[in-house]
Amino acid sequence: MITDFPAMKRALILAQEALEADEVPVGAVIVDSQTGTIIAEARNSMQQAGDATAHAELTALKAAMVAKGDARLAECDLYVTLEPCPMCAAAIALVRIRRVYYGAEDPKSGGVDHGPRIFQSSSCHHQPEVVSGIMEKESAKLLRIFFQSKR
Amino acid sequence: MITDFPAMKRALILAQEALEADEVPVGAVIVDSQTGTIIAEARNSMQQAGDATAHAELTALKAAMVAKGDARLAECDLYVTLEPCPMCAAAIALVRIRRVYYGAEDPKSGGVDHGPRIFQSSSCHHQPEVVSGIMEKESAKLLRIFFQSKR
Repeated sequence: MITDFPAMKRALILAQEALEADEVPVGAVIVDSQTGTIIAEARNSMQQAGDATAHAELTALKAAMVAKGDARLAECDLYVTLEPCPMCAAAIALVRIRRVYYGAEDPKSGGVDHGPRIFQSSSCHHQPEVVSGIMEKESAKLLRIFFQSKR
Repeated sequence: MITDFPAMKRALILAQEALEADEVPVGAVIVDSQTGTIIAEARNSMQQAGDATAHAELTALKAAMVAKGDARLAECDLYVTLEPCPMCAAAIALVRIRRVYYGAEDPKSGGVDHGPRIFQSSSCHHQPEVVSGIMEKESAKLLRIFFQSKR
């Protein structure tokens, strides 16, 4: 069982920050695989930004393109604590992320291994590698705390 | 045959501007159905912004949320010259657009009536009404000019 990824640990810290800001706790980190360094990171900020599309992944992707000065992130990997939704999965394909590591599955709203399974669709022209289940218990615990607080 | 929509005419002008800027010619306009006014608009700007996710629709949605001061656009309609891709279709659902009017179909990369058919997916929790084929000839002509220039 894979449990120790420094970039996923950082994504979990960002998810914790989202939880403390009353956002759905999801964090995302983008690593340049050629240097091994984090080039962008973000947490969910839909409430704070007043923007239903301000998901951690999309925000991190946009920041990474600025950081790289490139509209493509071909040598970059994304670490995210929750399975990306269809919007973020499609964005991941558009920017040509090399590999997606995610934590917990999202059977209700996920778009990678659930729902439209974006990377398998005929409208998807880049298939990143996908590795799931990375520190999923820690990710799921934060989500459980958030949703229990909303009941 | 429906041919005359002022907001789609405006979207076509934006698509023409994209063409002149050497972007894939797509324009998008968001109308508040309660006032009948345009609250946001955008054209494709992937090259200019250095951002593969800078599609007309996503950019217009983000501007509309700022304009309304609301993370949801429940009473708003989107006019776009080309069938939205999966990323933009999923974003449209997240912000709860009331109705999508689009021009030309996109069999290769569309996400509404092709590919993952986002609004019919189990991961999609809001289904906007969809009206297609609005001024599609004018939209398709701009796209043809663009792609012919790239050969």
